Amino acid sequence: MSSRETDGAADVMPVAGIRLGAAAAGIKYRDRDDLVVIEIAPGGACAAVFTRNAFCAAPVTVARRHLQTAAPRYLLINSGNANAGTGRQGIADAEASCRALADATGCGAGEVVPFSTGVIGENLPTDRIEAALPTALAALSSDGWQAAAKAIMTTDTVPKLSCRQIQLDDGRSATVTGMAKGSGMIRPDMATMLAFVTTDLAVESTLLQGCLEQAVAPSFNSITVDGDTSTNDACVLVASGAADAPAIESGRAPAYPALCGAVSEVCMDLARAIVDDGEGATKRVEVVVGAAASEQEARQVAYTIAHSPLVKTALFASDPNWGRILAAVGRSGIVDLAIDAVELWLDDVCIVRGGGRAPGYREEAGARVMAQPAFTVRVILGRGDAEARILTCDLSYDYVRINAEYRT
Amino acid sequence: MSSRETDGAADVMPVAGIRLGAAAAGIKYRDRDDLVVIEIAPGGACAAVFTRNAFCAAPVTVARRHLQTAAPRYLLINSGNANAGTGRQGIADAEASCRALADATGCGAGEVVPFSTGVIGENLPTDRIEAALPTALAALSSDGWQAAAKAIMTTDTVPKLSCRQIQLDDGRSATVTGMAKGSGMIRPDMATMLAFVTTDLAVESTLLQGCLEQAVAPSFNSITVDGDTSTNDACVLVASGAADAPAIESGRAPAYPALCGAVSEVCMDLARAIVDDGEGATKRVEVVVGAAASEQEARQVAYTIAHSPLVKTALFASDPNWGRILAAVGRSGIVDLAIDAVELWLDDVCIVRGGGRAPGYREEAGARVMAQPAFTVRVILGRGDAEARILTCDLSYDYVRINAEYRT
Repeated sequence: MSSRETDGAADVMPVAGIRLGAAAAGIKYRDRDDLVVIEIAPGGACAAVFTRNAFCAAPVTVARRHLQTAAPRYLLINSGNANAGTGRQGIADAEASCRALADATGCGAGEVVPFSTGVIGENLPTDRIEAALPTALAALSSDGWQAAAKAIMTTDTVPKLSCRQIQLDDGRSATVTGMAKGSGMIRPDMATMLAFVTTDLAVESTLLQGCLEQAVAPSFNSITVDGDTSTNDACVLVASGAADAPAIESGRAPAYPALCGAVSEVCMDLARAIVDDGEGATKRVEVVVGAAASEQEARQVAYTIAHSPLVKTALFASDPNWGRILAAVGRSGIVDLAIDAVELWLDDVCIVRGGGRAPGYREEAGARVMAQPAFTVRVILGRGDAEARILTCDLSYDYVRINAEYRT
Repeated sequence: MSSRETDGAADVMPVAGIRLGAAAAGIKYRDRDDLVVIEIAPGGACAAVFTRNAFCAAPVTVARRHLQTAAPRYLLINSGNANAGTGRQGIADAEASCRALADATGCGAGEVVPFSTGVIGENLPTDRIEAALPTALAALSSDGWQAAAKAIMTTDTVPKLSCRQIQLDDGRSATVTGMAKGSGMIRPDMATMLAFVTTDLAVESTLLQGCLEQAVAPSFNSITVDGDTSTNDACVLVASGAADAPAIESGRAPAYPALCGAVSEVCMDLARAIVDDGEGATKRVEVVVGAAASEQEARQVAYTIAHSPLVKTALFASDPNWGRILAAVGRSGIVDLAIDAVELWLDDVCIVRGGGRAPGYREEAGARVMAQPAFTVRVILGRGDAEARILTCDLSYDYVRINAEYRT
């Protein structure tokens, strides 16, 4: 898949004002990095969106609080332990690890924003994190993206990185570079598992938040692996302001749409990389629902298809079992659906029209589309002109293996 | 599991006024019966509930229509082909097979009610059904339950039968006997895949429908295998009136609560048997959500848990991975959930209290509960006194195998 080929590649561009360092704290894994420190130059701004899961993790609670009170100087990220379902101890542990990094660097604890990903329900080993901080700080480098992207992986099989360069009107340029992790428990709601996108531009904070939110909606918030919204989802956009370029202080600044475009593309790359790396995934499938009465309705139908275990196993089998897709559309909750108006397409092959098999459709044509590593399932509802697009993957033996063996 | 031991056993009681005959029509399977005729004595009454899937199958449409116009004399059931997603041809085929049975028996086509289950999207081979009808009619017998329960199976691995005897006040007795099929595409909404329950009592039709609906709510409408509501769900309750007992013409008749109790028990037996025989299932799990603000809220949380692929694979692995259950509760859509009030229990082992691991909980205790073939996951929301119970099963390698190989 194309994004797999570009993401995870060695050469993302560094971002002025951003340095990253990784270290092995031994939180859960052996012989690999699991701790990342991201340093933001003084004067940088940070926008963030977090999971809507009511059982949000302790670091999400602490991160929200710290972001409200101070501009962050450091992001502190660990894999192997989600520090979720850990009650008051979890909050205390997240605060303690922020304090340890603040003490080591001379900033305030409120200027450190914590992120965790991994097993739910176990206390964070703050002593091991604290012990590994000097190594991570010594490693800080603007070229630390690859090591950082690897250190935040859990069941991920590849690091996920993306980069865009922005050409400014005056001939100068700026950069957007981001990384993400995520493979299972992926059905982000307001953000994804963990994604960190940075730019060297200076951007006013409301504009920065707007830039992030419009980028997240069609990317991270439109993917699903298994329908399970994580407790730890977070997506952060950092503007270091270190570029040799004027600050963006108005939405009418020419650089703002260019930045928004670049951030959207980076988020889309990273979201696609998460689906490609979905637990056990062998295929990436875009579910498009068109001619819907509203976007909400279109998304509801698209998610019902994308979450159906029967549809997902048929995708795995490259079996154009369109009855399962129709059954999912039919149970998706549209009360007055006229089934005669519904069409179903696999890429450019029309399979269903008028409530039944399309005239002239032959199963070989559907099977040929489904044998590809990436294709589109398109449902036309015939009710209006709203549309939604959801990226998902198939359900394979390996999904069961990975999740039956995860903790053992 | 206990229901498996009793269901599918040889000795359900026949029901006066009801005869069943099976035959091999060669619709999809070789060397097995796939066609069933159920004959109802003249004067019998019939109540039914059907799928709410908008893409309901042709036989569902025809069955609804026929039940509105006449008291049925025959139910005509085939496996191997769902006659769903077949457009106008499907309706014509369902009507034609009713007509063929009517011609062979001398009743009206509207007195035949059709049911189909099997592959979606292929036309019904009415010629083969018609050719097999004489064999099925010749086999009609009040002892035909076993053969009929086997003939309606698709991916089922065991026939599903249940029976209760009702002792009436005057020393006489009546019988409730039922059969069902279902294993995948199971998340009934108003009915299950296919279930046929009969009694020899005479029951006024509104009371009969009421009896069925109260029995279906906590049984078939509270189970889920994969969240995929079928296109062909139907549950039928037939009262032949052939028992030597007074007709039930009022809800105050003493026999009515006894009948309702027996029908509820038979439906619960059959629903449990469907979950036990869920595609690839190795465990039966009751998800109980208590102390909810409303029953609707409790069901929403229970279904979110029961449909989570991460929870279902943890059930398969006997892994008390309670973080996945909390994450499912947290994403189930309760906006103002106070997570400190939430408790999680596996049978009588308290695992979570106050938003984190319960004091004294040890993983071995949770693992011991989950190693059982059947157990309860109980979530206490701390918001009110409503409760919901959903029966479900785990997600195993075999679910993927069965559904990746189903058509090939």
